Amino acid sequence: MQIHTPDWVKHAVFYQIFPDRFARSKQPHRKVLRNASWEDWDAMPTLQGYKGGDLWGVIEQLDYIQDLGINAIYFTPIFQSASNHRYHTHDYYQVDPMLGGNPAFKELLDAAHARNIKIVLDGVFNHASRGFFFFHDILENGPYSPWVDWFQIEDWPLSPYNGEFPANYVGWDGNRALPVFNHDNPEVREYIMEIAEFWITFGIDGWRLDVPFEIKTPGFWQEFRDRVKAINPDAYIVGEVWGDSREWLDGTQFDGVMNYLFAAPTIAFTAGDRVDIEQVQGRSYHPYPPLFAAEYAAKIQELLQLYPWEIQLTQLNLLASHDTARLLTIAGGDRPSVELATLLLLTFPGAPSIYYGDEVGLPGRLDPDSRRGFPLEANWDREILNTHRHLIALRHTHPCLRTGDYQVLYTQGELYVFARTLDTEELVVAVNAGTASAKANIDTTNLHTQPQKLLYGTAEIEWHGEGENKHLSLNLPPRTGCILGVG
Amino acid sequence: MQIHTPDWVKHAVFYQIFPDRFARSKQPHRKVLRNASWEDWDAMPTLQGYKGGDLWGVIEQLDYIQDLGINAIYFTPIFQSASNHRYHTHDYYQVDPMLGGNPAFKELLDAAHARNIKIVLDGVFNHASRGFFFFHDILENGPYSPWVDWFQIEDWPLSPYNGEFPANYVGWDGNRALPVFNHDNPEVREYIMEIAEFWITFGIDGWRLDVPFEIKTPGFWQEFRDRVKAINPDAYIVGEVWGDSREWLDGTQFDGVMNYLFAAPTIAFTAGDRVDIEQVQGRSYHPYPPLFAAEYAAKIQELLQLYPWEIQLTQLNLLASHDTARLLTIAGGDRPSVELATLLLLTFPGAPSIYYGDEVGLPGRLDPDSRRGFPLEANWDREILNTHRHLIALRHTHPCLRTGDYQVLYTQGELYVFARTLDTEELVVAVNAGTASAKANIDTTNLHTQPQKLLYGTAEIEWHGEGENKHLSLNLPPRTGCILGVG
Repeated sequence: MQIHTPDWVKHAVFYQIFPDRFARSKQPHRKVLRNASWEDWDAMPTLQGYKGGDLWGVIEQLDYIQDLGINAIYFTPIFQSASNHRYHTHDYYQVDPMLGGNPAFKELLDAAHARNIKIVLDGVFNHASRGFFFFHDILENGPYSPWVDWFQIEDWPLSPYNGEFPANYVGWDGNRALPVFNHDNPEVREYIMEIAEFWITFGIDGWRLDVPFEIKTPGFWQEFRDRVKAINPDAYIVGEVWGDSREWLDGTQFDGVMNYLFAAPTIAFTAGDRVDIEQVQGRSYHPYPPLFAAEYAAKIQELLQLYPWEIQLTQLNLLASHDTARLLTIAGGDRPSVELATLLLLTFPGAPSIYYGDEVGLPGRLDPDSRRGFPLEANWDREILNTHRHLIALRHTHPCLRTGDYQVLYTQGELYVFARTLDTEELVVAVNAGTASAKANIDTTNLHTQPQKLLYGTAEIEWHGEGENKHLSLNLPPRTGCILGVG
Repeated sequence: MQIHTPDWVKHAVFYQIFPDRFARSKQPHRKVLRNASWEDWDAMPTLQGYKGGDLWGVIEQLDYIQDLGINAIYFTPIFQSASNHRYHTHDYYQVDPMLGGNPAFKELLDAAHARNIKIVLDGVFNHASRGFFFFHDILENGPYSPWVDWFQIEDWPLSPYNGEFPANYVGWDGNRALPVFNHDNPEVREYIMEIAEFWITFGIDGWRLDVPFEIKTPGFWQEFRDRVKAINPDAYIVGEVWGDSREWLDGTQFDGVMNYLFAAPTIAFTAGDRVDIEQVQGRSYHPYPPLFAAEYAAKIQELLQLYPWEIQLTQLNLLASHDTARLLTIAGGDRPSVELATLLLLTFPGAPSIYYGDEVGLPGRLDPDSRRGFPLEANWDREILNTHRHLIALRHTHPCLRTGDYQVLYTQGELYVFARTLDTEELVVAVNAGTASAKANIDTTNLHTQPQKLLYGTAEIEWHGEGENKHLSLNLPPRTGCILGVG
């Protein structure tokens, strides 16, 4: 089978936005809630509080986003939901009124598209919420409800809120706030398919799928793909699967997954023993223990072997998300860890995704702290921001960083060097994760060119020999990386 | 102040439909719920069960409705709600998916309008439901909810479902399933006003307002009227107020109320001591004790004095509703009671409203029994149906029955005679509620004409004298009524 994934994703740099926390609009708008007492924007987030970010706020920040080099936004859920993260869907057809509702979203979609920025939404189709109409009807009418087969009821009566009694229905992860759909019911399946179609028709450019591995109904995701792609063949479908995702990346389901298999070794290599174990343990990815360059190379090569190349190019690569602590905090506040990991992210095949705020050095422990309000300009880490701007720009300038072959050239201690090659274009990327300068004499037999211009970073470079004896001599300061290109 | 009410209502005959119970569509349609195990259509209704009536079913019955002579439908609530009566609103902007959603309603609206049938919806704006998004958010987030001022929270925590703990919020009539809005919050007020505007703009012809007397926020219903009439000056606004409604019928709020002040004496007069007290006691109207004709006349004349004439002509007159037992059952199954009351209903100023099924003799005790599935044709009471058809047709044929003056001519024992006069048209209506024939010699000095043609019913009629000595001699069989017109 020939696998086909959307071309635009191969060239995309994503920005992941948690809508309640990115930007609160400054311009006046028609609002349902006008005199809200939001949680203080700069205060430590709470599990239940709202900070009042909205989609008009995102529109107001499109200059910033575009200037950063972003050309795709992945939103965590925006549909009506009684939770600040909006994973507890109340209505799949309504954008949350606090975000501005469907009209604000339409405005955002048009404004983003006018700038060639794509929009991908988070689809939470495994479970809904206690207030979701069809589940609510079961709460209200018990066995009399016509919707009783839409969820997984185990016994009566249900206890949706009082934890002293068994819930008597299946909630995701045992959480009674998240009743799980009965996907084997053809009506439920059809209901979800139509939601997917509705928003694709509305104009979104793809779906990020929340915990899709939980849905085990045969053919479910195949049908999802078929129906979405029938409307927009270029729609992007990316699943939240943290580990080996071959089951879903066979070309008939997702175009990619959230690539935590990239994030984990990249953090383990660049942050090493700086990793704050408390911030990563017990999660579904493993940025610990530290990796040497050779171990990192092995992980990366294993990852690149795992899925077809067409899929690799449309993976959603990331270093952090709303589901993890922020990279800077995981790395114990160490800025070079962030910069090195970001260098590896922006030079890897597949679409990089930057979690809002990471680009300005926003720290944050695990949820809820990882979902802080986007900081005031005065509090930005300019160096981290410039690193992001620079690396994103380089990725856009050099096609080989996006779709070129990936070739490990050298690993020794904490020095990792690789090349990206596309047709006649070739770049060499080197990362010295160690605390001492690193020197290497690299066999470049397999390179077609002699990249010697420093496009990023500082390093001493020298080329030796010719043809089969060609070597690149590299001296990289501690905790830095570089990109070399042909002049 | 000149009071203005919608002209079309003065000429309307309403049909009240309880959507879950009127008609289930036979034609195939796109349905969210396709394999529902509905409660058996003919089985005794239950408080929580659904029978699956829908709006396509209403469309399929428009021939029947139109043939009956109906030119306006008042629907009990149709918005998304987790209750078979749909008074527990879950979403004010969505027609319930079981009814066919907004698309089915649009289709119905267009089909009805094409037949010059108006559509009035039931607006439940005092309270919502536990699953209503803005209340649900409070359930989920407690004091953190930004919507906390939208309802009347008294303490924490809330107990929405477990009756062993105090609800800690105001529920209508103490019912925790019906959280009461905080109408004093300007955001809530605006929210409700916009709903009213939305559906008027959508094309509905008016609002029936549920328990509007509960909303005591100054100016609320005045603003409601102003905003609705600004969009459609002919929109009908009718409040559910059971008693003296002068407070709302001053011309600045409602065009009329559900006229239980008409229903009660009319039943008390026509059904008399047949009234099954159990079916009427403890309700907010008083169809008991029995009334003699003179007492009935007094009640009616008091009622006609209570409000301006322009309001009288747009009252919503009824004999039964979803909130009462059915007339036939109240009258202990006595068909003549139904026919006599219906005669009085169809000859009274103001728009008559027939509760679906009453026209075919459907019985029913108080809720839930008063909300049975509309019977199969085989089970119709043809005589009651013909009575309805005939009386409705007469009302349409004779403008004086709609907008003519109302003049009591004669009361004696259980014989009640009155005239309706408009310009040169004059009809005399007589009802003998007694079990013996009734003879009367009626002074008709105030009549301009000598109605002597029997348009309805059987009676012996003779005119005597001329001018100031003019008398009508009438002999009416027991438990019958008649209408006399000029040949």
